[in-house]
Amino acid sequence: MLEEQIKSAIRDIPDFPQPGIVFKDITPILKNQALCSAIVEEFADRLSGLHIDVVAGVESRGFLFGMMLANRLNVPFVPIRKQGKLPFKTVAESYKLEYGQATIEVHEDAFSRGSRVLLHDDLLATGGTVVAASKLIEKLGGVVAGYAFVVSLTFLQGGGRLTRFSDEIVSLVEYD
Amino acid sequence: MLEEQIKSAIRDIPDFPQPGIVFKDITPILKNQALCSAIVEEFADRLSGLHIDVVAGVESRGFLFGMMLANRLNVPFVPIRKQGKLPFKTVAESYKLEYGQATIEVHEDAFSRGSRVLLHDDLLATGGTVVAASKLIEKLGGVVAGYAFVVSLTFLQGGGRLTRFSDEIVSLVEYD
Repeated sequence: MLEEQIKSAIRDIPDFPQPGIVFKDITPILKNQALCSAIVEEFADRLSGLHIDVVAGVESRGFLFGMMLANRLNVPFVPIRKQGKLPFKTVAESYKLEYGQATIEVHEDAFSRGSRVLLHDDLLATGGTVVAASKLIEKLGGVVAGYAFVVSLTFLQGGGRLTRFSDEIVSLVEYD
Repeated sequence: MLEEQIKSAIRDIPDFPQPGIVFKDITPILKNQALCSAIVEEFADRLSGLHIDVVAGVESRGFLFGMMLANRLNVPFVPIRKQGKLPFKTVAESYKLEYGQATIEVHEDAFSRGSRVLLHDDLLATGGTVVAASKLIEKLGGVVAGYAFVVSLTFLQGGGRLTRFSDEIVSLVEYD
């Protein structure tokens, strides 16, 4: 079963990036491209009917499956990047981190008004970055059609912060 | 022709990231996934015969086509990342920037000794990052089997710095 295959590929890294946090390392998944293909197929199956016009992925790990998913759905891929990385005119959104804040940006011509955007990241934790990315999509007149995550850390309750944008949240693996 | 299609999709951004530099913005390519598929097919064609065991891609933009290419070739994808991002044990390599320096890392179990690694980035400029990534591959006992770039800025002569690792350098578009 796909969920079990993904779970057995994920590697727990204790005390990263800080003491007390167990980091879910997805890089072993990338070694098994048959598994990666199965992940993208599962996303495509579970997103069918959402009429997705664009896939947006959050830098950096959201580029990995985001690009493959856009290719599979034959829709544009839009990179959402950290401040200062995108060269054309951008819109920006800042959000709080545990210490300090971060800013992400998207090109202002990334999609047309009314576009239905599927937002992807590899892992949903507290949802700070994904909420900021959702706001960016709405700032440009797009609609958050849904979310696709390989992993959700449901005990951090990030999903609850996303439902005001869209109830369509696909997570292939959950840790609670 | 593929080269012309890529060139007409690339957008010139004057004075980014600094005055006097014309940045080649590849994000419009990502809007056309048929073109992205053609890019990956062309890489696969031109790399056939190199017996590639692994595709390594350099964060962040090297993740976009790097992951697709690994999937197309059905070999593992290895992310090479900026310092502090990879959670497992890593090896690191620093290199000079115009001002200061940068460090990139790879997981120490990224591939087996003797593995033939195809190194990908979207764009080859002066080659500083790609040389450092090549050294990382050799540090882990891998062999640089070749390079794949969507774009090469040949006037910056980065290619000349790579031939000590491998003569197999595929660039789909060159600016000279």
